[in-house]
Amino acid sequence: MQWQVYLSGEIHSDWRQQIMQGAKSQGLPVEFTSAATDHEASDAAGDVLGAESSNFWRDHKSAKVNAIRSKSLLEQCDLAIVRFGDRYKQWNAAFDAGFCAALGKPYITLHDEDIIHPLKEVDGAAMAWAQTPEQVVEILKYVTQEP
Amino acid sequence: MQWQVYLSGEIHSDWRQQIMQGAKSQGLPVEFTSAATDHEASDAAGDVLGAESSNFWRDHKSAKVNAIRSKSLLEQCDLAIVRFGDRYKQWNAAFDAGFCAALGKPYITLHDEDIIHPLKEVDGAAMAWAQTPEQVVEILKYVTQEP
Amino acid sequence: MQWQVYLSGEIHSDWRQQIMQGAKSQGLPVEFTSAATDHEASDAAGDVLGAESSNFWRDHKSAKVNAIRSKSLLEQCDLAIVRFGDRYKQWNAAFDAGFCAALGKPYITLHDEDIIHPLKEVDGAAMAWAQTPEQVVEILKYVTQEP
Amino acid sequence: MQWQVYLSGEIHSDWRQQIMQGAKSQGLPVEFTSAATDHEASDAAGDVLGAESSNFWRDHKSAKVNAIRSKSLLEQCDLAIVRFGDRYKQWNAAFDAGFCAALGKPYITLHDEDIIHPLKEVDGAAMAWAQTPEQVVEILKYVTQEP
Amino acid sequence: MQWQVYLSGEIHSDWRQQIMQGAKSQGLPVEFTSAATDHEASDAAGDVLGAESSNFWRDHKSAKVNAIRSKSLLEQCDLAIVRFGDRYKQWNAAFDAGFCAALGKPYITLHDEDIIHPLKEVDGAAMAWAQTPEQVVEILKYVTQEP
Amino acid sequence: MQWQVYLSGEIHSDWRQQIMQGAKSQGLPVEFTSAATDHEASDAAGDVLGAESSNFWRDHKSAKVNAIRSKSLLEQCDLAIVRFGDRYKQWNAAFDAGFCAALGKPYITLHDEDIIHPLKEVDGAAMAWAQTPEQVVEILKYVTQEP
Amino acid sequence: MQWQVYLSGEIHSDWRQQIMQGAKSQGLPVEFTSAATDHEASDAAGDVLGAESSNFWRDHKSAKVNAIRSKSLLEQCDLAIVRFGDRYKQWNAAFDAGFCAALGKPYITLHDEDIIHPLKEVDGAAMAWAQTPEQVVEILKYVTQEP
Amino acid sequence: MQWQVYLSGEIHSDWRQQIMQGAKSQGLPVEFTSAATDHEASDAAGDVLGAESSNFWRDHKSAKVNAIRSKSLLEQCDLAIVRFGDRYKQWNAAFDAGFCAALGKPYITLHDEDIIHPLKEVDGAAMAWAQTPEQVVEILKYVTQEP
Repeated sequence: MQWQVYLSGEIHSDWRQQIMQGAKSQGLPVEFTSAATDHEASDAAGDVLGAESSNFWRDHKSAKVNAIRSKSLLEQCDLAIVRFGDRYKQWNAAFDAGFCAALGKPYITLHDEDIIHPLKEVDGAAMAWAQTPEQVVEILKYVTQEP
Repeated sequence: MQWQVYLSGEIHSDWRQQIMQGAKSQGLPVEFTSAATDHEASDAAGDVLGAESSNFWRDHKSAKVNAIRSKSLLEQCDLAIVRFGDRYKQWNAAFDAGFCAALGKPYITLHDEDIIHPLKEVDGAAMAWAQTPEQVVEILKYVTQEP
Repeated sequence: MQWQVYLSGEIHSDWRQQIMQGAKSQGLPVEFTSAATDHEASDAAGDVLGAESSNFWRDHKSAKVNAIRSKSLLEQCDLAIVRFGDRYKQWNAAFDAGFCAALGKPYITLHDEDIIHPLKEVDGAAMAWAQTPEQVVEILKYVTQEP
Repeated sequence: MQWQVYLSGEIHSDWRQQIMQGAKSQGLPVEFTSAATDHEASDAAGDVLGAESSNFWRDHKSAKVNAIRSKSLLEQCDLAIVRFGDRYKQWNAAFDAGFCAALGKPYITLHDEDIIHPLKEVDGAAMAWAQTPEQVVEILKYVTQEP
Repeated sequence: MQWQVYLSGEIHSDWRQQIMQGAKSQGLPVEFTSAATDHEASDAAGDVLGAESSNFWRDHKSAKVNAIRSKSLLEQCDLAIVRFGDRYKQWNAAFDAGFCAALGKPYITLHDEDIIHPLKEVDGAAMAWAQTPEQVVEILKYVTQEP
Repeated sequence: MQWQVYLSGEIHSDWRQQIMQGAKSQGLPVEFTSAATDHEASDAAGDVLGAESSNFWRDHKSAKVNAIRSKSLLEQCDLAIVRFGDRYKQWNAAFDAGFCAALGKPYITLHDEDIIHPLKEVDGAAMAWAQTPEQVVEILKYVTQEP
Repeated sequence: MQWQVYLSGEIHSDWRQQIMQGAKSQGLPVEFTSAATDHEASDAAGDVLGAESSNFWRDHKSAKVNAIRSKSLLEQCDLAIVRFGDRYKQWNAAFDAGFCAALGKPYITLHDEDIIHPLKEVDGAAMAWAQTPEQVVEILKYVTQEP
Repeated sequence: MQWQVYLSGEIHSDWRQQIMQGAKSQGLPVEFTSAATDHEASDAAGDVLGAESSNFWRDHKSAKVNAIRSKSLLEQCDLAIVRFGDRYKQWNAAFDAGFCAALGKPYITLHDEDIIHPLKEVDGAAMAWAQTPEQVVEILKYVTQEP
């Protein structure tokens, strides 16, 4: 069986690459999907549909275009990894976690120890909390092994 | 028809009271539900099940006890109001919004203008963005009127 | 058993009143719900959240506020009556019919004979086609009688 | 990942071909599906099952045969494009949009600016509003790119 | 808790009355629902919508009007009793049983021993096979008792 | 797209072969599935699990083994063809039709004109009524054509 | 809001009474439901339908009659308490827990410390592990308090 | 069609190998999946995420990591085989059976005659009870044969 794993959250460090390369180097049967990770492109996702004078509606249009992608990929994945970094609000990561929880879709959080408390609800509905990409790769290896 | 409205998010201002009183004074057919709003009690929700030496597991236990309540009430509500204030990370509010989005449950966000950009995904899946409790009451009045 | 019947579509004739009065005069166990039927108020449903300079976004905001109501009521109803009159595009009526079809929610169309052909897909998924409010009331009487 | 995109609505202009060719020329991982687009054949879809003397039942039979196709393809698609042109009532397009909305299936509307107002409910539940096939292709390109 | 029990199938003997009276005389917390049991009225359920020259379409129209009732009541019931008598084809009873099976709705069949073999698939998905109305009442009594 | 079509009902005529050969000769993108059609083998499906002294339980065991197959294939199919012949009770065919109806799975009935009336509920929930295998093949051809 | 709490598992100690009395004495808005707790009656639940010579089929018949009750009540409850005592296999308690897990229905396990290891999967999907009925009552009190 | 069969339960005998080899030697179109069957590895599945001082939380972490695998595979399988041996509590096997039952996923139990009574609820919701791996292979052969 091929597993589909969605990578959600922080876009300012290379955690996605570390997980994808770790999985690849071990030959794991995993296909990775992800939200758009180019911050500028993501903010401008709706611009092709026409310019907006209001920041709210420009954001709104782009958010919906991005959601076509993220919603479909979340609904199709077998597992999500949700990463919280140390910059920005990252409400979209928490939103994705809630989305998974409501669908009964398993997810693993990936974050440092210092944000355990504010993330307690998000961690409470997760299947695991990892602190490093290497740990995530180890879990993927364990979970995907054939009988 | 009686509407059930869930009040999610910030617990450090009186926005819940303003909405509940506004709805009551107008005689709207709305029953309000909410997560626990006593911060200390919420953090200690799992303590009755035994003490924990690890902060992670104490938080985990309490988060799950709180989720019995919040998950049930979210699944039963007809509409959620999700409030983002100006303190703390408030990842649980974003988590609730994602939970609603996955269930196809309508929600309204309530926040100031200065956090439009970080909330764009959360607002993108919302049915409305309000800036004041009064606006929320007006929407409730409009939505719940009988034919 | 109390039946909940949603009245969707045309707002420029008194078909809703005819059905509601017909059902009432016969003492049928039916509670009626409906989208907002005041055209002006419906177009302005989102104005309380702030003015918009663009027609598209004003319509968008109001449509979403209206959808909080219509989506909830459609999901809760046992049966919908979808009325197509002879004015305007009435795409929202066809939209509601499709919404019902996808949910497996039974609906009855109410329209004149001259629009049979353009409504064939909408009628094809309906449980009945009626031409007068009196016929709808007769169907409601038959459907709701106790054993 | 291969995306399945359903093309719904107007059959009197070549917007389907423009989108399919645009996607093909850019090598996008998209498979397109569609309702039958031959108007005569669509109206006659049920004739093989026997002639009908009543127009209503002839339309009814054909609509149901067409629905075998459209319902299955809508349920399987990842995204729908719903096109409203300037001729006919096009209630089937609005019906398809409502069908998608109830399933939580994302859709993009494609129509000119002059019908914004009558389409406000349909647009309100859409993920985007496009005015040209080129814009749709751009969105498809953005949405389907690999991480 | 109040149980809703749907009585499906044969309309030419008084098995419904026996079960309803048995439940009533024991004070069981059960509300009974049923398809229309007046054969003539059931066949004519669609006639109010206009006469049909074709037997197929007259039956079709009436069947759909009847289905508004039966489908809703089946989806709402907690348990169905499906009765097969010794006359007619009774395909609608088997249809109702299959409908329940697909929804995961428990049902009890009520029929004589001589039709065990042709009913084996219908009985195979049932929760029990009863031969008399008295047995059904006994099961209802057992199932609905409070803790 | 490859369509999966389930063939349900009568096992004493060669209608399945006619449909499968018709579809094959036209190169239609259809994979056919079916319940077991060997009457003896079907009745004995549970015998490998041990002999039963009671006819009811022998039938019960075999019916459940058969249901592993039929239930899975029905849930996976895109369309079912439900055939009623002129022998036996054929309650399993009506059961399969009800199963499809509850899942919102489209089905076509295939039967002669003389049983229109007893099949009215089954036909009422069907997408089409065909009288010959050739008609079914024509519908399949129409439904499965590529855009 | 009134909460419905299902009490599953061990029937040889008075834990149900302790929880029900604790909740009652505190005036909690909870309605309790439960499987049948009379062991003899539960084993004989199907006997009214006729005697069986085989132990397997007698058990089978009774289990299915019991399941009419337990399945309905589990699907309707807001929360389940699953109790594992120190006697018998209690596979039905673990079965109920798995049933809840698949439905996304929250449950609390109630058992002593010495069976933590064999119950790890059951506890892993639970919202809380309690060791005494008093703890369960405290959780119910916390979870059901009004805003 | 390729069938996916999940093998749940006892890990201390070679029943999985017998079924897999039996299916392979007969060329059946079956892909087998399974929970992790290495007892030590399963207990240590969460250790990579950090050591725990409490047995409960070590078990909890490992159970959740294991559940990522088992939950996904159960939800994807077409059929589960649930084996109860003569050692240990095996509550996870009963849990998996309940999980399948709630999803409407067919399963076959595999166990000796002496535990019929304690397994009556688990067997009551099963599609078959087998006593040997050879019987399971025979059922798989019957169920998976092409039309």
